[in-house]
Amino acid sequence: MKWVNVLGGIVGAAALLGLGIILGHFAIPKGSYVPTPSIFQDLDLEILESIMQQLDASRIRENLRELSREPHLASSPQDEALVQLLLQRWRDPESGLDSAEASTYEVLLSFPSREQPNRVAVGDPTGNVLFSCRQSEQNLTGEQGGPDVVPPYAAYAPPGTPQGLLVYANQGTEEDFMKLQAQGIKLEGTIALTRYGGTGRGAKAVNAAKHGVAGVLVYTDPADINDGQSSTNETFPNSWRLPPSGVERGSYYEYFGDPLTPYLPANPSSFRLDPDTVSGFPPIPTQPIGFEDAKILLCQVNVSVYNRLELRNSSNVLGIIRGAVEPDRYVLYGNHRDSWVHGAVDPSSGTAVLLELSRVLGTLLKKGTWRPRRSIVFASWGAEEFGLIGSTEFTEEFFSKLQERAVAYINVDISVFGVSLRLNSPPGQIPAPSLGGLSIYDNWIRYFNRSSPVYGLVPSLGSLGAGSDYAPFIHFLGISSMDIAYTYDRSKTSARIYPTYHTAFDTFGYVDKFVDPGFSSHQAVARTAGSVLLRLSDSLFLPLNVSDYGETLRSFLQAAQQNLGVLLEQHSISLVPLVTAVEKFEGAAGALDQRISALQKATPDPLQVRMLNDQLMLLERTFLNPRAFPEERYYSHVLWAPRTGSVATFPGLANACSRAMNTSLGSPAWAEVQRQLSILVVALEGAAATLRPVADF
Amino acid sequence: MKWVNVLGGIVGAAALLGLGIILGHFAIPKGSYVPTPSIFQDLDLEILESIMQQLDASRIRENLRELSREPHLASSPQDEALVQLLLQRWRDPESGLDSAEASTYEVLLSFPSREQPNRVAVGDPTGNVLFSCRQSEQNLTGEQGGPDVVPPYAAYAPPGTPQGLLVYANQGTEEDFMKLQAQGIKLEGTIALTRYGGTGRGAKAVNAAKHGVAGVLVYTDPADINDGQSSTNETFPNSWRLPPSGVERGSYYEYFGDPLTPYLPANPSSFRLDPDTVSGFPPIPTQPIGFEDAKILLCQVNVSVYNRLELRNSSNVLGIIRGAVEPDRYVLYGNHRDSWVHGAVDPSSGTAVLLELSRVLGTLLKKGTWRPRRSIVFASWGAEEFGLIGSTEFTEEFFSKLQERAVAYINVDISVFGVSLRLNSPPGQIPAPSLGGLSIYDNWIRYFNRSSPVYGLVPSLGSLGAGSDYAPFIHFLGISSMDIAYTYDRSKTSARIYPTYHTAFDTFGYVDKFVDPGFSSHQAVARTAGSVLLRLSDSLFLPLNVSDYGETLRSFLQAAQQNLGVLLEQHSISLVPLVTAVEKFEGAAGALDQRISALQKATPDPLQVRMLNDQLMLLERTFLNPRAFPEERYYSHVLWAPRTGSVATFPGLANACSRAMNTSLGSPAWAEVQRQLSILVVALEGAAATLRPVADF
Repeated sequence: MKWVNVLGGIVGAAALLGLGIILGHFAIPKGSYVPTPSIFQDLDLEILESIMQQLDASRIRENLRELSREPHLASSPQDEALVQLLLQRWRDPESGLDSAEASTYEVLLSFPSREQPNRVAVGDPTGNVLFSCRQSEQNLTGEQGGPDVVPPYAAYAPPGTPQGLLVYANQGTEEDFMKLQAQGIKLEGTIALTRYGGTGRGAKAVNAAKHGVAGVLVYTDPADINDGQSSTNETFPNSWRLPPSGVERGSYYEYFGDPLTPYLPANPSSFRLDPDTVSGFPPIPTQPIGFEDAKILLCQVNVSVYNRLELRNSSNVLGIIRGAVEPDRYVLYGNHRDSWVHGAVDPSSGTAVLLELSRVLGTLLKKGTWRPRRSIVFASWGAEEFGLIGSTEFTEEFFSKLQERAVAYINVDISVFGVSLRLNSPPGQIPAPSLGGLSIYDNWIRYFNRSSPVYGLVPSLGSLGAGSDYAPFIHFLGISSMDIAYTYDRSKTSARIYPTYHTAFDTFGYVDKFVDPGFSSHQAVARTAGSVLLRLSDSLFLPLNVSDYGETLRSFLQAAQQNLGVLLEQHSISLVPLVTAVEKFEGAAGALDQRISALQKATPDPLQVRMLNDQLMLLERTFLNPRAFPEERYYSHVLWAPRTGSVATFPGLANACSRAMNTSLGSPAWAEVQRQLSILVVALEGAAATLRPVADF
Repeated sequence: MKWVNVLGGIVGAAALLGLGIILGHFAIPKGSYVPTPSIFQDLDLEILESIMQQLDASRIRENLRELSREPHLASSPQDEALVQLLLQRWRDPESGLDSAEASTYEVLLSFPSREQPNRVAVGDPTGNVLFSCRQSEQNLTGEQGGPDVVPPYAAYAPPGTPQGLLVYANQGTEEDFMKLQAQGIKLEGTIALTRYGGTGRGAKAVNAAKHGVAGVLVYTDPADINDGQSSTNETFPNSWRLPPSGVERGSYYEYFGDPLTPYLPANPSSFRLDPDTVSGFPPIPTQPIGFEDAKILLCQVNVSVYNRLELRNSSNVLGIIRGAVEPDRYVLYGNHRDSWVHGAVDPSSGTAVLLELSRVLGTLLKKGTWRPRRSIVFASWGAEEFGLIGSTEFTEEFFSKLQERAVAYINVDISVFGVSLRLNSPPGQIPAPSLGGLSIYDNWIRYFNRSSPVYGLVPSLGSLGAGSDYAPFIHFLGISSMDIAYTYDRSKTSARIYPTYHTAFDTFGYVDKFVDPGFSSHQAVARTAGSVLLRLSDSLFLPLNVSDYGETLRSFLQAAQQNLGVLLEQHSISLVPLVTAVEKFEGAAGALDQRISALQKATPDPLQVRMLNDQLMLLERTFLNPRAFPEERYYSHVLWAPRTGSVATFPGLANACSRAMNTSLGSPAWAEVQRQLSILVVALEGAAATLRPVADF
């Protein structure tokens, strides 16, 4: 479709800032191949290129077909069958890894009742049912029917059968409800109809309940997902757009990880909270519906939610390639496995790429051609859709080991969001599928860029929220993390996300026909992610550019000065210590870059390399402070914790300022601003100290 | 004096458990000397022995004389003069270190008023003063007079002038006040007279205030400190015993670190709490007195406390020897510098040893004879007496760097508690001064031992509380720590501590005449601490024995099973996961020991050594959980956090059990028991995971 052009881009990488720069260097002269890895061996560019060439679009397509053949909701038999598929692939004698194991956690999930389907109906005052919403999506391709397609529901919403007048509450934000109240609309006992977007899923019910609302409906608005198109002939299976009956499922839990075992792995013996006392579940019954139904709802509505909580076994699968030289340095690469229904895009497009990449590397490994310098850990996470559960439990169980040894975490969940064209490419370059042979780097920089004082125009990276399994790695453990995907051209569509997201229409046929015919975008993601993985696992010096981090700090500082400077000055709070700390970081980062350059020209001894790499690896850890945001579960990273405002700056400082703004001088809220500023200054000073020469204590 | 025989022992080392074993190996055949350190160089036993021989008792004596010549209360001009002395020594061209710097924090200290001395007086009901306590100690040696001898006071006790009937409240524990109340004694508005011991200094006032007590006096009972002797001819200067006028000063602050900047370094720009809202200060006026006065106090007492809080600059001094091979691995060795008065024993006996050790090492360094494999950081901490302030601020400021790189922290504060005899010793052995040529090891094992299932009888180590500057290192940062001292024979005296502790009688003459004439015990401490330091900084493999840690865990487990097993079973809480975790730790530790042995026989490559040492170094870190004890400021170590009960077992579990014991099934207190058990299991599993082969994720 002409209006949805394709774009190669990398979305939402936080901390591997330097990699962007490095990805552009595909023209570096190739080194000669040394078959036996030694402790002096750097990344072998010939092997890298060979791997790039072997990553095969048609194999990714076959992977995706197999992965998305059946619905595979977390902990379902089909999900477990995929665990076996992964184990079989990763234990294959010809293309498997060194070892692969599944590990299982017992976690609290939420499902609709089979016996009593959730129901949304319109009644008249005497109780007659005038209209009932669909209880499942329309079976348009033969894949939306059958017992394994979970009906649309809001996971973790409590059961209940509220009824009341319907009130349209826009996105269900705090502001939306305040406006309704200001207009004199009685909210007590009503059913709020809200649309997806603007705030988290569960937050809509939290906001609603504060005003006495009895139940919440959430629908997907065609304006938000289909650029306004809503008729059947304009939507799937006639285009990639969401059909009228499509309903976005999702987890309505506020936090992530198993709800019963915060900060503890959900092993059978672990202490579990009483489910009745768990915080973070929606306070009132909530149900998602399609826009077809949403536009009919007008008056008195009955909502019947029969969701129930169940303790289920959910598996992660881990596949390992042992490092030849530094086996105690782990480069992690993962994606979740579970889907709401078939999940062809989310998450199988990522897993299909993962399997192709592990096949190519496994084959080299089994042939004895190659073994990485550092260990590679491939992961297939369980129960992500319910709140990043598998990955979070993993970080809780292996907290110490990961903090000590993890170099980086690469996440490829939805690998391709948008349509692509297939193109031939000159050898040695990764093509950006739709853009006439531009390299990934050139394509990337074309759509997402920023101006660097050092390098000029460079690709820009988004920041990492909690949208996929990278969240516990970056926020809880302080491990440099990256999320990679090809997305669509946002100048051509305003879709909030790809339209069939979390619906029964996210199928293999949808991907094959509309998202990436020919799978060249998938192949490009495989090459991009593979290249990042290889560079992290094989480079003598870790490809982490600390000066880029300095640029981010500088931009955060400037934003703080511009947006908060006057306010802080009025309250006699000086930003000078923060300025000094940023300057120290920049100085230490620049000097470290020079030391690396100098060492690269010499023949560094292996311990010198290791010491320097430890500085690079542990930099991200220095930004963690578990006491910084005690109210924000799992968030300890002082730079990437959630921000309430829209300005890209230091989150703790910005949030504290926005809370203090309307309080009086000397209030606890202003003390908290000062505390947050000190926490930040100490973290930045600590980060700078980590980058300085190790012998200068 | 016959009844105070001497004993060589090491008190209170927690985590360097393996070193005990290693200290016994002084008879290992000597290696040949390699002048240029290479990455394969192990500890050179010839150099070690040469260092042992050069540690000179008479120089230690001279150091002590100089250090304790004048009172040097934290932040006083005399304390600052000692900062200059340390800098001069550590920058000496012939015996200095690579570099030395002082760094200053601005911290909240507490002092008595010069204008209005604190006063304790007995009055009759009409207000006439019948008797006044001494406001300073008797000037017995000419050193107890003068403006620089701070009068006895309770640091951080609030000012106030309460008066009321005197009630004798024993040690001022919660139990003591409960007993008085049970006897029908009215406590409201009284002055409680308590003796030192049984509970922390500040806790006496906290307990008293709960019963409405208006003021607290604390005296040193001759039964606790002088084996009952109290007359002037039986006490100093006629013996080492405390004279009647002696008063123990001390900090009455409940926590440690600067009270205004918990978890933040007390840099000028750091956020500071409002002093009026600080928790942890005694709630009511409190004053220490001597036993001479204590026995006179009988009736209505007026207490006038005029202490005031002051922000002061307090310095740490750091001296560095850069490591030749692994400069990013730090072995820290420290002691505080500040004293209450002259502080000859506390802390100058430790600093005198520190200076002698740094002189000998500095001399080798300047000659080019030796440079350690790892970096050595010598530290002289400020304001320890007020609550470990200098060391705590240091750990707050360099949190990340220390967690990443510190191998161990060695503390030598009071280096010699007791009297010693001087003996000659055969070469190559460190004599235990009073015991006829027994080695330190043999002497140690004679007085403090335990039975190891692996090694048979071995020296035993105490566990580390918060008595000196090791506390923030072990509890807050999880750095393996050790406290070394020679103490007196506890079968010969029941003194709670050496008698002149924190009084104006702790002078050079006191040490020279009574504590260690000839300074051979000081020399033995220098040799012991020096040997530990060298072994940590120079050994190819870190001398940390992880199997010994396993023995501690096993003994904690057995104690838990014996003391808590039945109770837990009654509440359906199983210890099986804990048993399994301890077994996993033991298995992993044993296997690691074997790998080290095997590697030591081969020629390990430098990265293999480094990887293994990282496992050893980071083991202690795996026991940290900042969310385990949120109420216990700075305490994050799940094995060494404070325990309320007397059984040596896992503190979190034991404390939670004792709180839950009398609550009903299903109470939050029982949930907390289960949470603590899970926290412990996860920490031990994480520790075992850190010890397992690094390539087996």
